[in-house]
Amino acid sequence: MNATIYQSAINIAAKVGLYLSLTMFIPALVDLYFAHPDWKVFALSACLMGSLSLVTVAATQGGPPVFNRKMGFLLVNLLWLVVSFVGAIPFWLSSVNLDFAEALFESVSGITTTGSTVIAGLDNAPPGILVWRSLLHWLGGIGIVALGLFVMPYLRVGGLSFFKMESSDTTEKPFARIVTYTRAFVLIYIVLTVTCAIIYGYLGMNRFDAINHSMSTIATGGFSTHDASLGYFNSLPILWVATFFMTVSSLPFSVLILFIVRGRLDTLKDPQIIVFLSYLTVLAIAASLYQRLENGVAFHEALAHSFFTVSSILSTTGFASDDYMLWGDFIVALAFAATFMGGCSGSTAGGMKAYRFIIIFNSIRAGLYKLIYPNGIHTVRYGKALVDIDVQRTVFLFFTAYMLIWAFGSLAMGAFGYDLLTSASAVATALSNVGAGLGPIIGPAGNFSTLHDPALYLLSIMMLLGRLEILTVLVVLTPLFWKD
Amino acid sequence: MNATIYQSAINIAAKVGLYLSLTMFIPALVDLYFAHPDWKVFALSACLMGSLSLVTVAATQGGPPVFNRKMGFLLVNLLWLVVSFVGAIPFWLSSVNLDFAEALFESVSGITTTGSTVIAGLDNAPPGILVWRSLLHWLGGIGIVALGLFVMPYLRVGGLSFFKMESSDTTEKPFARIVTYTRAFVLIYIVLTVTCAIIYGYLGMNRFDAINHSMSTIATGGFSTHDASLGYFNSLPILWVATFFMTVSSLPFSVLILFIVRGRLDTLKDPQIIVFLSYLTVLAIAASLYQRLENGVAFHEALAHSFFTVSSILSTTGFASDDYMLWGDFIVALAFAATFMGGCSGSTAGGMKAYRFIIIFNSIRAGLYKLIYPNGIHTVRYGKALVDIDVQRTVFLFFTAYMLIWAFGSLAMGAFGYDLLTSASAVATALSNVGAGLGPIIGPAGNFSTLHDPALYLLSIMMLLGRLEILTVLVVLTPLFWKD
Repeated sequence: MNATIYQSAINIAAKVGLYLSLTMFIPALVDLYFAHPDWKVFALSACLMGSLSLVTVAATQGGPPVFNRKMGFLLVNLLWLVVSFVGAIPFWLSSVNLDFAEALFESVSGITTTGSTVIAGLDNAPPGILVWRSLLHWLGGIGIVALGLFVMPYLRVGGLSFFKMESSDTTEKPFARIVTYTRAFVLIYIVLTVTCAIIYGYLGMNRFDAINHSMSTIATGGFSTHDASLGYFNSLPILWVATFFMTVSSLPFSVLILFIVRGRLDTLKDPQIIVFLSYLTVLAIAASLYQRLENGVAFHEALAHSFFTVSSILSTTGFASDDYMLWGDFIVALAFAATFMGGCSGSTAGGMKAYRFIIIFNSIRAGLYKLIYPNGIHTVRYGKALVDIDVQRTVFLFFTAYMLIWAFGSLAMGAFGYDLLTSASAVATALSNVGAGLGPIIGPAGNFSTLHDPALYLLSIMMLLGRLEILTVLVVLTPLFWKD
Repeated sequence: MNATIYQSAINIAAKVGLYLSLTMFIPALVDLYFAHPDWKVFALSACLMGSLSLVTVAATQGGPPVFNRKMGFLLVNLLWLVVSFVGAIPFWLSSVNLDFAEALFESVSGITTTGSTVIAGLDNAPPGILVWRSLLHWLGGIGIVALGLFVMPYLRVGGLSFFKMESSDTTEKPFARIVTYTRAFVLIYIVLTVTCAIIYGYLGMNRFDAINHSMSTIATGGFSTHDASLGYFNSLPILWVATFFMTVSSLPFSVLILFIVRGRLDTLKDPQIIVFLSYLTVLAIAASLYQRLENGVAFHEALAHSFFTVSSILSTTGFASDDYMLWGDFIVALAFAATFMGGCSGSTAGGMKAYRFIIIFNSIRAGLYKLIYPNGIHTVRYGKALVDIDVQRTVFLFFTAYMLIWAFGSLAMGAFGYDLLTSASAVATALSNVGAGLGPIIGPAGNFSTLHDPALYLLSIMMLLGRLEILTVLVVLTPLFWKD
């Protein structure tokens, strides 16, 4: 690795750090508006981090950056680290009294759109802090979609290159140009957020709550302005609206663009959309039936809460409407399984994602056929397209790495003194960027505020690993990466 | 599939059913010796199942069987089904009062060397029944080693063909002949069993307990003649001896043969042995330290119980010396993780097995290297040998199929009304043929006697799936398998 690459990567990351520092003036203004003294914290953080970033930018200024694969991997990791660190400073300095591990956890949880929180007592938290959390979600959401659309295909991580080849942007001329594409995407992201906020407001949220929850919803983040999350509003219509927007935000943005901009209904026939919507519907109906038959909940209420809860977990948002730990053992098992599944590729959702399950299932079938007829040709398809062997490999690497890291992480949590349900669900929810765990501590009725620092650092690493599709981080940890 | 194949497969399976029926005279004699009236149950079962088998053999007699891959898959599945069914009859008819689901579960648990039991009150159970359980383990152990040595490599399931190509039996002439090989293997199996029984007896077990536990130990089964399992004897030396024999029985028998018969120490350098013994040692020492430091247990006691417990789980035996649920959260997490890991290929142990982890880790490394240098050649090795792409694929198929079946099974257990820990550990322990679950119901201090019939049927299927390396069963469930 030559020095130019480091220099360019640090330069770009510092620029992004600078932009993030500037956005701290938004929560500062909010605190000023509500006359909360924490506005000084944001102003100070903005100046501190802004000047630090500016100095770094100036010190690393050089020729135009060289883009190659190593640079790509390095930059992606560095970007998320810098943004996590810069984002943590206001939490650390603010009046909510977080130590550094907690502040970093909250920032990582925000920027990775996970939504696990260490802040207990959100209902009385400073408004600036609440806005900062929502903003981190919202910006993290843009960041991850951009990464999925433009960077990951180039790095060929997690089988996404497949979508690059197959997606319509190579056949549709207008979208060939990245600028047009980006503009359309940011516009749709903003329109979705504004629409969601307006409807939330119309259904009874005050303006502050509506805007915060809307940012959190569209980013499939999960931070709320209330400890009871969306359960606070006690409104079935709000749950349905959240369900709708969480689900939409779990769809591939490239497809949304084609659908909304050009009205192309056929783009919705993407196999991953069909599979994602199918397992969402099946799990939600199973949960509704269980709620109706086992617990005697009124059917429309069971339906609303079940669809909301299932789409909240599958979209990796992590909002809660109720303590579903109390709904029964089946729901706990269902929530746990759903934590791994995730949404669609190229969205703000995390988890394993529907397209990987499609490729895994088709590969298993082809593999079984090959055991019967070893000399036959048994292809693996995604919809009508052939999935080449490299993409299959990357999907399996991702799946096994995911499960092994989950196992190691859960063991480490066990060593830190947590019970198996807390340990296993904490690591799973972090890796999948869902945000809600299981059990009395970090379950839907709890939060991460009582976790010790080592656990918070571990989970912060897990959230970053999950957000960057695991392999992107592991690549940078291999010795080969650092050789010239 | 032509009719001849069905006919030959049924013919062979019925012959094995006949042999198994004949062995029922052993527990009949034991019951006669102890003057227990259940000897009639075994005599009756032997006659019933024996004549049924005999009639089937006669009805399906034909030309010499055709051996091809389809026949192989069909026969392996049929064999284990027939043996499970035949083995269940004495349990069903005996005085221990099991319904059919329970009897089938006990038989499957025996023949798959899992060792989960539905019989509470073992200390007062009829001696014939106890011997029948141990015998099923012991015969199941022989069956699975034979399958691993002779059949699975031919079917290319689970990456085992690799060992066929690489193992010494192609280069060492004496072992080229299957008969010699089989004779050596059965001899070693018997010598190990007798040695283990003698030492158990020397250390204080009565003759009946020594023989039963020795059969259970060498088969890495886990059935005991006492509800408290090996904890009943309250003897650290017995734990160490069990640890030694469980560990030896988890090593590949092909390597044991070369080592014992020809004194070839170098065969122990098989990478899977090194990895298996390493993770056994690391986990056992971690558990000992935790027991010493967190719970203040005397060091030699902590060491004996930890090594015993870890090797009991890793060898997929499932004996218990103590209720390790009470040792602390870390031990529970460790036991859970260990449930998946398993021993070596070609042994009586189940689980994922060490060689798969080696191939997975090396594939992940090669995959990461390929992400950095997509055009480079990045080979995957097992020791010095190259692992070809088909073997890698089968290993990944096995791993993903395993995890997905575990997830579906746990969800089903949740739907049957069991808590997540019980559900997830029951399915894991069944799939890995370990036998001990976690939680108050099926944990080391409990048993499977309170489980409802649907759960018992589900877990019986899981035990068979795990024992036959999953893919062998899945192959037979594909539509393609049944096409001509």
